[in-house]
Amino acid sequence: MPDAVCAVVLAGGSGTRLWPTSTDARPKPFLALSGGKSLLVETFDRAARLAGARNVFVSGRRSHADLIRHELPGLPESRMILEPARRNTAPAVALAALVVSEEGDGVMAVLPSDQAVRDEAAFDAALRTAAEAARTHAAFVTLGIPPTRPETGYGYMEISEENHERLSSNGKEVAARVVRFVEKPPREAAERYAKDGRHLWNAGIFVFRVSLLFEEMKRTCPDVLDAARRAHAARQAGDLSSFAEIFSSSPSVSIDVAVMEKASSVLTVPCACGWSDLGSWDAVLDFRAKSPGANVIEGRAEVRDGRDNLVLAGDRPVRVIGLSGIAVVDAPEGLLVMRRGASDELRKSVEESLAVRP
Amino acid sequence: MPDAVCAVVLAGGSGTRLWPTSTDARPKPFLALSGGKSLLVETFDRAARLAGARNVFVSGRRSHADLIRHELPGLPESRMILEPARRNTAPAVALAALVVSEEGDGVMAVLPSDQAVRDEAAFDAALRTAAEAARTHAAFVTLGIPPTRPETGYGYMEISEENHERLSSNGKEVAARVVRFVEKPPREAAERYAKDGRHLWNAGIFVFRVSLLFEEMKRTCPDVLDAARRAHAARQAGDLSSFAEIFSSSPSVSIDVAVMEKASSVLTVPCACGWSDLGSWDAVLDFRAKSPGANVIEGRAEVRDGRDNLVLAGDRPVRVIGLSGIAVVDAPEGLLVMRRGASDELRKSVEESLAVRP
Repeated sequence: MPDAVCAVVLAGGSGTRLWPTSTDARPKPFLALSGGKSLLVETFDRAARLAGARNVFVSGRRSHADLIRHELPGLPESRMILEPARRNTAPAVALAALVVSEEGDGVMAVLPSDQAVRDEAAFDAALRTAAEAARTHAAFVTLGIPPTRPETGYGYMEISEENHERLSSNGKEVAARVVRFVEKPPREAAERYAKDGRHLWNAGIFVFRVSLLFEEMKRTCPDVLDAARRAHAARQAGDLSSFAEIFSSSPSVSIDVAVMEKASSVLTVPCACGWSDLGSWDAVLDFRAKSPGANVIEGRAEVRDGRDNLVLAGDRPVRVIGLSGIAVVDAPEGLLVMRRGASDELRKSVEESLAVRP
Repeated sequence: MPDAVCAVVLAGGSGTRLWPTSTDARPKPFLALSGGKSLLVETFDRAARLAGARNVFVSGRRSHADLIRHELPGLPESRMILEPARRNTAPAVALAALVVSEEGDGVMAVLPSDQAVRDEAAFDAALRTAAEAARTHAAFVTLGIPPTRPETGYGYMEISEENHERLSSNGKEVAARVVRFVEKPPREAAERYAKDGRHLWNAGIFVFRVSLLFEEMKRTCPDVLDAARRAHAARQAGDLSSFAEIFSSSPSVSIDVAVMEKASSVLTVPCACGWSDLGSWDAVLDFRAKSPGANVIEGRAEVRDGRDNLVLAGDRPVRVIGLSGIAVVDAPEGLLVMRRGASDELRKSVEESLAVRP
């Protein structure tokens, strides 16, 4: 391998639809929502299997530094990139790429840590394929998740069927060219996408050569790159107050909007790995249920005469009696009792209460 | 009024169907289940309106003495009758009657404090009528609640329609003669009782001349009376360890079984006062709902897109979303989420967990 492979784990992410467990003080990546380790640790492990643990960087909010250290006690301080403010993913990825490039050009993978994967081996294989493609092609290479339902809340990537690029020598693994990004399609379109074989979910996972990112950002979002360069210089000089000031002045924009949608060449590696964004309690139950209709129970909880429930108990025993298809989440911040499928109502409720908070 | 009227409030009562709020350490009478004061205080107030506060005695468990003092800070110690063990209501009533009779013969009312009443004025009037009947007739005079549904879990009193006794001078208030007690009838019978106008619920509220109680107990349950007399003598002598020993050796039996069902003469005063035993969360919701289908909410709780729910919040905010007809009860002891009508399943669940406790 002529070029080093690095991975950057994005430790951001939140979720009003995961009230009361996910909070600003302890958001999604720091929770064991998939039923195993925290999502951050699971994502770090994925990154480490690709790049080696010492080549994994973690990008997160400064206010979460202690949470990150607690979850990843072996992570060197030099591998932590702490942001003084939330400016969405484009400034975070640019800054991380600049830190990575201190050690020379190379291939960099970006992995958001607000996700879970059932088939880790399938994920690993797809990510290796993507890294190989990014090494040999001047392209951003994403992972594309084949849709399993007509989801209207996700971003889709449309691929050109005529233009597959055969990448591996055994002919088994291919990447497709992305011809269009579609964000949160209407219901009808989503139903078509779920069946036409030409649309994949954008999981926000992508690999690229660092030098390519800088070239493309110079063209598509020079203000973001410029702010990142100046912030990075202040950081290198140890001037943390300038760093904070400059970084905070960067435009707040996602890497998808700032770069990917305008990039000259985007490929995607289809990856049917049982991926979930665990974006709602419905998604958490779907991901964790051992069989359709089974209850998912955590802690001292009893479900009697009920199925298809998610029950996450807190310190106290919980009894759920005569009810099916509900989520019960008991956390220090509050208690949620919700019908399956009502996640949007939960989001509205949480947003309204945040809006009226003084 | 030639004879004094006293009232004895029974501060016992528990309820596995009210988990997690009602516990052995803090059972039903000490909870504000009706939405106002504690049931004990509400019952005390009813008793005081009949007999005057200084003529109200409270009979309860010794382990609840501090709870009683806390709820009724003005109650003289001489008016507290503390039992060293649970022996059901017959020994408690016998002992209370002996304490009351220290001040001479008179009329005594017994009021369990695990109940609630919507129309206090109607209740007061019926209880006064019952006290008047007990003064002028050699009979136990109960309050009879006209059934509002075919309840199979209650005791019923069958009245003789031909044998009403006109008791008041204005002809408005009457008592009926009880010809039979029926405990927990089968469904079919309960449905008949709910409609035939000849059956009333036995709320465990009754009034009698103290001397009549002793006469009847001598005949129907001499062992209970004897134990009560000896326990009372030890109590008067200040020998609390003998008192405890004797009282605990008394048969454990209800006053209904030991006396009322065998008594020579039982009358009942019908009392349509919106009575409830608050025996389950379903009953609590029915009692407290302002209108059919309305939510009953206590504490920091939001119900969104739902009706006919009972939500009793604890220390933390509660969100109930997209669900109707459920009870959510958040208490230090535990958390309950239950479909309306599943109270029997809750009882079984609690009983099973008590059975396996070492």
